Amino acid sequence: MKILAINGSARDDGNTELLTKKALDGLDVTHIHLRDFNIRPIDDLRHTEGGFQPVEDDNDRLVEMMLDHDILVFATPVYWYGMSGIMKNLIDRWSQNLRDSRFDFKDKLSKKTAYVICCGGDNPKLKALPLIQQFSYIFDFVSMEFGGYIIGKGNQPGEVLNDIEALAQAEQLNKHLN
Amino acid sequence: MKILAINGSARDDGNTELLTKKALDGLDVTHIHLRDFNIRPIDDLRHTEGGFQPVEDDNDRLVEMMLDHDILVFATPVYWYGMSGIMKNLIDRWSQNLRDSRFDFKDKLSKKTAYVICCGGDNPKLKALPLIQQFSYIFDFVSMEFGGYIIGKGNQPGEVLNDIEALAQAEQLNKHLN
Amino acid sequence: MKILAINGSARDDGNTELLTKKALDGLDVTHIHLRDFNIRPIDDLRHTEGGFQPVEDDNDRLVEMMLDHDILVFATPVYWYGMSGIMKNLIDRWSQNLRDSRFDFKDKLSKKTAYVICCGGDNPKLKALPLIQQFSYIFDFVSMEFGGYIIGKGNQPGEVLNDIEALAQAEQLNKHLN
Amino acid sequence: MKILAINGSARDDGNTELLTKKALDGLDVTHIHLRDFNIRPIDDLRHTEGGFQPVEDDNDRLVEMMLDHDILVFATPVYWYGMSGIMKNLIDRWSQNLRDSRFDFKDKLSKKTAYVICCGGDNPKLKALPLIQQFSYIFDFVSMEFGGYIIGKGNQPGEVLNDIEALAQAEQLNKHLN
Repeated sequence: MKILAINGSARDDGNTELLTKKALDGLDVTHIHLRDFNIRPIDDLRHTEGGFQPVEDDNDRLVEMMLDHDILVFATPVYWYGMSGIMKNLIDRWSQNLRDSRFDFKDKLSKKTAYVICCGGDNPKLKALPLIQQFSYIFDFVSMEFGGYIIGKGNQPGEVLNDIEALAQAEQLNKHLN
Repeated sequence: MKILAINGSARDDGNTELLTKKALDGLDVTHIHLRDFNIRPIDDLRHTEGGFQPVEDDNDRLVEMMLDHDILVFATPVYWYGMSGIMKNLIDRWSQNLRDSRFDFKDKLSKKTAYVICCGGDNPKLKALPLIQQFSYIFDFVSMEFGGYIIGKGNQPGEVLNDIEALAQAEQLNKHLN
Repeated sequence: MKILAINGSARDDGNTELLTKKALDGLDVTHIHLRDFNIRPIDDLRHTEGGFQPVEDDNDRLVEMMLDHDILVFATPVYWYGMSGIMKNLIDRWSQNLRDSRFDFKDKLSKKTAYVICCGGDNPKLKALPLIQQFSYIFDFVSMEFGGYIIGKGNQPGEVLNDIEALAQAEQLNKHLN
Repeated sequence: MKILAINGSARDDGNTELLTKKALDGLDVTHIHLRDFNIRPIDDLRHTEGGFQPVEDDNDRLVEMMLDHDILVFATPVYWYGMSGIMKNLIDRWSQNLRDSRFDFKDKLSKKTAYVICCGGDNPKLKALPLIQQFSYIFDFVSMEFGGYIIGKGNQPGEVLNDIEALAQAEQLNKHLN
């Protein structure tokens, strides 16, 4: 099982990344950081003659990476009680991907399993629940299995390592994926 | 009462924009479209020496507009069960604005009232509820009053005009703000 | 279209009842009040030999009323951010009804449409959203269409009549069902 | 720290009870089962002259038990995506307790910490999230700290013992409370 960890954080070595590395340690995983890619916001041309047009950015490359792995881990800090804007731009472009005849995007996603790992500083185990529900709707839309999620608490660098519950969940996820 | 309608849509004349114009018709309102502005994703330097650095984009101008109005209307299509990526990037930058000594950002927001108007095609009156909850947490964080929200149903251009419940809510909001 | 309005309030003439009467005024509707019925909490015998046993209360009568109408309106005050306990006991018994060969309960519910009308005093337009989500899951489970919901604000007797947005929604629902 | 585990299940030895016993094993805990108590639904007399009247049931005794412990664990199966009706009736009566001069109910609860442990059979890690949000609002209302929650998956008797993530969380909670 090839795993792609899609990191949506705006900084290196953040709590989300730490927790994600714990969860996926020793597995066949590729970590990517969206901040290293150029993803344009969607230009919604669904209802325009000619439909979506090619965009000069890294989206195609990211689509290929997503489709080339069996398990997708969406690892995002909880920014303002949601996923980061750069991760949201990635997801928004799925509307274009779905209509791109090169990809067979939805059918291929429907055979994968998704996980969410997120960390936040402001009571995330409650206030990140709408984000989990949003991801659930996203995965449902493309018929991708939602394998599970871990919500970690951490604001200062490294703070999530004090969240023994999240660490225990990461350990269980690691065993499960092994 | 000066109203700023912040449109997060990726296209012109979408359902969200239609519904927002109905709700704010005849009022002292400025409509802006985030797709006309350049907003960089946040570069999270909270924990880096020196902190946040100036960014060459339109964020400062948007901050000034937000702070210069009494009522902020966040008008976003429901993309993948959340606000659009460009609106999320705007919000993510609030973490920087909060730490920018030029703005007094939080204190000023705390004296304003926010509304949310959003439209979606896939059962939005249920599936946009996590988005409403997210906005509620966002406004709470900056102590800004959450005046209310309208969720419209529409996918095809103009379709929201068939959502008589949303139109009735828009009419009531218009009366309330008048 | 025969409508059954199931009132879960613990008092007469509460805000929820007022709003429900507005919404259903002039329609072919039967109003019942759960406080006038004896509904025992479920005795969970799913995994016991012999399964569920007959219970001496009014549940059978309520099942017949539900199955005899086309539209079910669940009208409950928001007590502690949920439906009232007496309404919850009614719903809990559905686990028994589903297994009762006399009823064909699920199949018949799947041909009906459900609405929710609820009123609360503590910021219900936000804090009743988990209740709406719960109802959505409930109706999904029995494949009953969720036609819509109205959340009214009111604590003191009659206060919901000041909630012009809820009244406008009630008026639209009335037109829609007419 | 004296712990009261309030079990809302309608049967013995259910999954919720199993998971709760794991989480509280070896601690100073009193387990009670609401099905062994008589709790009347609330008779809402808030707006009636004279207010609430004494009720002949076990509510007073349950209030005393709640107030006599430092930590309250609400252990309920997920019935129809919510707490059981008998637990909801217990909570509904809090509206009466708050107005009962004998108790000083709210002030005393505000010094306690609450936990929620729940098990469900239908995708509970997603579909029990509205229930968690509801409990969060409940505890907020009485200013009681929400210490955490565990959602277990299980339908058949004993099935939760296969949910290694929930068991790991139970173990961490046990350590934390020790």
